[in-house]
Amino acid sequence: MKAEIIAVGTELLLGQIVNSNAQFLSVELAALGIDVYFQTVVGDNLNRLQQAIEIAQSRADVILFTGGIGPTEDDLTKDGLAAALGRNLHIDTPAMEHVQRFFDERKIFMTENNRKQALMVDGTTPLPNEVGLAVGLAHAHEGKFYIVLPGPPREMKPMFTDKAKPWLLQHALTHEMPIYSRMLKFAGIGESLLEDKLIDLIRNQTDPTIAPYAKEGEVTVRISTKAPSEQEAAEKLNALEEQIREILPEHMYANIDIPLEKLLVDRMVNASLTLSAAESCTGGLLMETLTSIPGSSSMFLGGIVCYSNEMKMKLLNVPEALLEGKDAPGAVSREVAEVLAEQARLIADSDFGLSVTGVAGPGSSERKPVGLVYIGIAERGQETEVFELNLRGTRDNIRLRTVKALLYRLWRRLEQR
Amino acid sequence: MKAEIIAVGTELLLGQIVNSNAQFLSVELAALGIDVYFQTVVGDNLNRLQQAIEIAQSRADVILFTGGIGPTEDDLTKDGLAAALGRNLHIDTPAMEHVQRFFDERKIFMTENNRKQALMVDGTTPLPNEVGLAVGLAHAHEGKFYIVLPGPPREMKPMFTDKAKPWLLQHALTHEMPIYSRMLKFAGIGESLLEDKLIDLIRNQTDPTIAPYAKEGEVTVRISTKAPSEQEAAEKLNALEEQIREILPEHMYANIDIPLEKLLVDRMVNASLTLSAAESCTGGLLMETLTSIPGSSSMFLGGIVCYSNEMKMKLLNVPEALLEGKDAPGAVSREVAEVLAEQARLIADSDFGLSVTGVAGPGSSERKPVGLVYIGIAERGQETEVFELNLRGTRDNIRLRTVKALLYRLWRRLEQR
Repeated sequence: MKAEIIAVGTELLLGQIVNSNAQFLSVELAALGIDVYFQTVVGDNLNRLQQAIEIAQSRADVILFTGGIGPTEDDLTKDGLAAALGRNLHIDTPAMEHVQRFFDERKIFMTENNRKQALMVDGTTPLPNEVGLAVGLAHAHEGKFYIVLPGPPREMKPMFTDKAKPWLLQHALTHEMPIYSRMLKFAGIGESLLEDKLIDLIRNQTDPTIAPYAKEGEVTVRISTKAPSEQEAAEKLNALEEQIREILPEHMYANIDIPLEKLLVDRMVNASLTLSAAESCTGGLLMETLTSIPGSSSMFLGGIVCYSNEMKMKLLNVPEALLEGKDAPGAVSREVAEVLAEQARLIADSDFGLSVTGVAGPGSSERKPVGLVYIGIAERGQETEVFELNLRGTRDNIRLRTVKALLYRLWRRLEQR
Repeated sequence: MKAEIIAVGTELLLGQIVNSNAQFLSVELAALGIDVYFQTVVGDNLNRLQQAIEIAQSRADVILFTGGIGPTEDDLTKDGLAAALGRNLHIDTPAMEHVQRFFDERKIFMTENNRKQALMVDGTTPLPNEVGLAVGLAHAHEGKFYIVLPGPPREMKPMFTDKAKPWLLQHALTHEMPIYSRMLKFAGIGESLLEDKLIDLIRNQTDPTIAPYAKEGEVTVRISTKAPSEQEAAEKLNALEEQIREILPEHMYANIDIPLEKLLVDRMVNASLTLSAAESCTGGLLMETLTSIPGSSSMFLGGIVCYSNEMKMKLLNVPEALLEGKDAPGAVSREVAEVLAEQARLIADSDFGLSVTGVAGPGSSERKPVGLVYIGIAERGQETEVFELNLRGTRDNIRLRTVKALLYRLWRRLEQR
């Protein structure tokens, strides 16, 4: 089954926003076993939209629209689809009540143009909008399937997941076995090394399939299978997951799509463990990453960004002899990383203390190369570990990869407890 | 003049990457006065690529391709274009020497498939690749203009800016006056309020034109004009810039495209001023933002993330009476923001001390509402300022907007020195 995604909106053609909706829907459709053959972006112009719909009808079975269903005169997606189907438009009563209720509850006067958000093409199925105001739609017609979704991602995503996807499964994918997928998450390993380790599995894949995806400093592997029931799929996926875990036991941290920082925060909160940190070259990125997770305030106590040597000495009791002098190891050293981790832990009286000191670039410092970084982990009653990293890339890359490496080492430490 | 951007690559149709190239090129083409009417994404498939080219030829004057010019069998963009133009392909000698030199310099054996990166459609103009290996091309044929660019943004952007754009100006835009643009940057004001203040200018705009763009917590206004010379353009742009600055004197911080944090770091480095910080709810985001700028190490000394009340008392000398007890103002208060800013400054002995304390959510704390944040600025020998913010949005939004607000207030403070 072939699909085309049509994003409607002049703001995309002006480059004011990036078409992240097409990416989201492409991933979702691939997971349903639907092949996306084309993505099209067209402006808020009825003629060109109708052209785009005609072309899509000639080459796709499933046509998904995003955007162009808001309240303004420029919002023309439903008009275009109605014209293509030879239908009229009407105001959908439940959708109109939903819009009216929004304004009533906020005691705001509803301007007339908002009625447009309740428009429906005659004879099609409304997809209610739980997050915003504009109603979506789904329709099967002459072997083609049409889905209209809102433009804002925070409205589009839940409408697709909760409304359009079940509709597609029921109407378009009835004769196909559903696809079941699982995300395996890895840390502390790059994409190419991971692929290398899994190359035999990947080369011989038939069912389930294996697809690695890399983002900055982390790798995800999606395993997928078609099966008549969730249980049969689970059996196949479990077997492959087990094979992969045996190959990379020290790197697979989850079999659901969760960032490593969230897994760590949740695990430490559940175990009533606390954490503090001392960061130099990452300048707050480590603490920012941890505190971006809701609930982190019960495990993260605080920490220090010690950019200057004075701050390292004053706040973290790093001995001057380590920092200055001809034979001193210097701020970027194993010794300083150790003191920073231990002092961060002591100052906050936390269970764990993390540290970073290194050269993020672009310039080198202390005649040490850009990308040389030491990370430390101190733990109450345990020996402090320090790891040396030799990273490549821009200042941003090096900072980000340092944080990922430290989170990975903390995860390993928690695994071994 | 109408344009279509065709991105070639199955990885886009699988949703593995987002089509950021289309966004970049759309912005660039708009600035040249070329209207992008369609963006298309097609996979690595010769038939479907040829279809897409035929459709684009029927509706666009300028057709830009990105991707599909690498070394693998899947890279088919030049094959598709050659077929559409009824031409053959050949290996371009300078491009081939460029590829060969790359491997020679690294003493790596060049596999045969890399010759593909030097392929050219007969009779077209090579666009050299300064960053990567695959050569691009430009061609004018029967009133249409074709540009082929690499897929990786780090190769595509310089090839467009340095090679394709001058080619377009010389071949496609000869009869049109060039467009000159300037970016005006604003802080401390939202998009809707800014539009409201500039509404008369925007409504009456003819030449230069005014286009506001909003990103999270900051607003940019692009002013553009067509003129026969740079000097005539500058006169028109200067006059409009002055009008806008008079309307929003407290918010326009630059007339070049620079982030506020970079402007602040550069200005403080030049003035030999130093900075430190104490952050609670932003958890390190403020310090991370400042230290993301190269050179920040000479103005930023360090700071403290004081997530817990204990850390606020122990490291920043916040009196217990302010934090705990029935009538205490609590951690999220004007009083605590003031102490944090002053103590951050004193501990580091810096010229400025910044502070943040607030409720980022999702849960409230101290029975204070999500989005209530206090930010403080202490300065050596000056009175400390504290500002109350009442922000809406997710945890991430609130943290980000808090940092933007604090950077804005610091900029105002430096302006008034």
